[in-house]
Amino acid sequence: MAEFALIDLIRKRCAILRADVALGIGDDAALLAVPSGQLLAVSTDTLVAGVHFLHGADARDVGWKSLAVNLSDMAATGAEPAWATLALTLPGADARWVEPFADGFADLARLHRVALVGGDTTQGPLSITVTIHGFVAEGAALTRSGARAGDGVYVTGTLGDAAAGLRMVLSKQAGNAHLLERLHRPTPRVAQGLVLRGRATACIDVSDGLVADLGHICTASRVGAAIDADALPASPALLAAFDIPDRRELQLAGGDDYELCFTAPDEVAPGLLRELHDSGCAATRIGRVVAGSGVRVRDASGNPVAIAHRGWEHFA
Amino acid sequence: MAEFALIDLIRKRCAILRADVALGIGDDAALLAVPSGQLLAVSTDTLVAGVHFLHGADARDVGWKSLAVNLSDMAATGAEPAWATLALTLPGADARWVEPFADGFADLARLHRVALVGGDTTQGPLSITVTIHGFVAEGAALTRSGARAGDGVYVTGTLGDAAAGLRMVLSKQAGNAHLLERLHRPTPRVAQGLVLRGRATACIDVSDGLVADLGHICTASRVGAAIDADALPASPALLAAFDIPDRRELQLAGGDDYELCFTAPDEVAPGLLRELHDSGCAATRIGRVVAGSGVRVRDASGNPVAIAHRGWEHFA
Repeated sequence: MAEFALIDLIRKRCAILRADVALGIGDDAALLAVPSGQLLAVSTDTLVAGVHFLHGADARDVGWKSLAVNLSDMAATGAEPAWATLALTLPGADARWVEPFADGFADLARLHRVALVGGDTTQGPLSITVTIHGFVAEGAALTRSGARAGDGVYVTGTLGDAAAGLRMVLSKQAGNAHLLERLHRPTPRVAQGLVLRGRATACIDVSDGLVADLGHICTASRVGAAIDADALPASPALLAAFDIPDRRELQLAGGDDYELCFTAPDEVAPGLLRELHDSGCAATRIGRVVAGSGVRVRDASGNPVAIAHRGWEHFA
Repeated sequence: MAEFALIDLIRKRCAILRADVALGIGDDAALLAVPSGQLLAVSTDTLVAGVHFLHGADARDVGWKSLAVNLSDMAATGAEPAWATLALTLPGADARWVEPFADGFADLARLHRVALVGGDTTQGPLSITVTIHGFVAEGAALTRSGARAGDGVYVTGTLGDAAAGLRMVLSKQAGNAHLLERLHRPTPRVAQGLVLRGRATACIDVSDGLVADLGHICTASRVGAAIDADALPASPALLAAFDIPDRRELQLAGGDDYELCFTAPDEVAPGLLRELHDSGCAATRIGRVVAGSGVRVRDASGNPVAIAHRGWEHFA
């Protein structure tokens, strides 16, 4: 398959009509209309074979996940996603890989009405860079820097599932279907981000691990956080498969959950929690924002919880 | 160097203040204000080590070129560049490579007042994906699809220099400084794109080779083009280093020139050519748009000119 056949294949499978796309794939640049009064939110994430997914991973899952990790950044910003570009570097133009990849990307794009508006295909070691674009009203965007001492700390969904799934894959254990699904097809919490915008004081998506990502909120907000390890929401599958020490490690330091961790003052919390529940993904209070710096973790009895590592970092 | 030190290094070296950046590097998404009445122009290009530049290439040149190829897409659209994201995949976090890379990127970013607003750093085989954003008034954007039979075909600057430089590098000849500069530090014709907007009928940047790229205009516009090989503008360095057959091959099929190829009706041409000259980069008429399809090349005597290949294509 030649380069232009490849682009055509991807374009056809990812075709989503949006009135705000004045010019889509196929020219030197896409031309797009941002609604007046809205800021443009932009984020970029790369997945590299052998680093972010295993060589030989299911192409459809890779397509899904390459968009999911980017949509998760829109969620964490409280932005409404609209457009994506796709830079795809492939060892060869193999339709048996590209077709399911494009289908997986399109599966998720359709759910969120994200139009693929451009990109680049190049030959080289397999990697995927998506740049996602969305809108958010000025003043309503969620950032990492607004947490205040006294706010509650919350997380959507459950933590640790993806890291548990990865551990199963790497140790070649028979994988639990729920945990593997959470690893390979994460659900970006876009609807929940929209509920939180203008109301949560800070927000981040949990991609590197709870302690690491909440640590980014603490640094940006110049506060600390106190977390109750026994309050961390866990899926039945995680509870069944791992004992407390392993589970805590997975929940506190495991990456790839793509849940939202946010802070909110107590007076807005009940309404927020009700609306999040109604949006299809409940949130759980896991601690509070305190004066100082850094993330401290204790169990329900108040004993410090040690974790072996604090989260994923490249080049560490 | 750890990932966050790396990001900090890049951020510091590429700091450019723009009032339309509400939130830059360091959160889950950048927040940006597109001027009202303007469309957002977006384009993405990837450079892969060993494909788009040689392993061991000067890092400062790679930084420059990774932005230049993207700015060239803004030029071809007639858009005013504003913001970029940078997805950088590196085998290791080596400051001796990243510092000059960031400096090369910043050298060109400063010339065009492009703010680096976000990105991603990951570990893996060396590659760089930049997504560039700019503005263009609705209706004024240059596309590939407006060429009409009878229009003249024009190109800015000179053709073939970059391909000549690459040939020298690959054959380990002593390189001519001008030709190597054109290969390693291409000049995106942003100012010329702004002159052309709303006036040229079609435009593309010459990245894959003149015949291939003009062919894209022909396909999108449903026209053909007749080119005079003897009219192609050549630099003194190219004229001195290559005889006619080689020179024609380099000028017709060589990529990486990043000149603009555009079409315009005769009545607007004199004014356009004068303004392009005044902008610092003159354009040359190289042929005309004809009914039909495809790009035909003849010499000044009317004899057909054969070329061995038609331009760069991945996976070909």
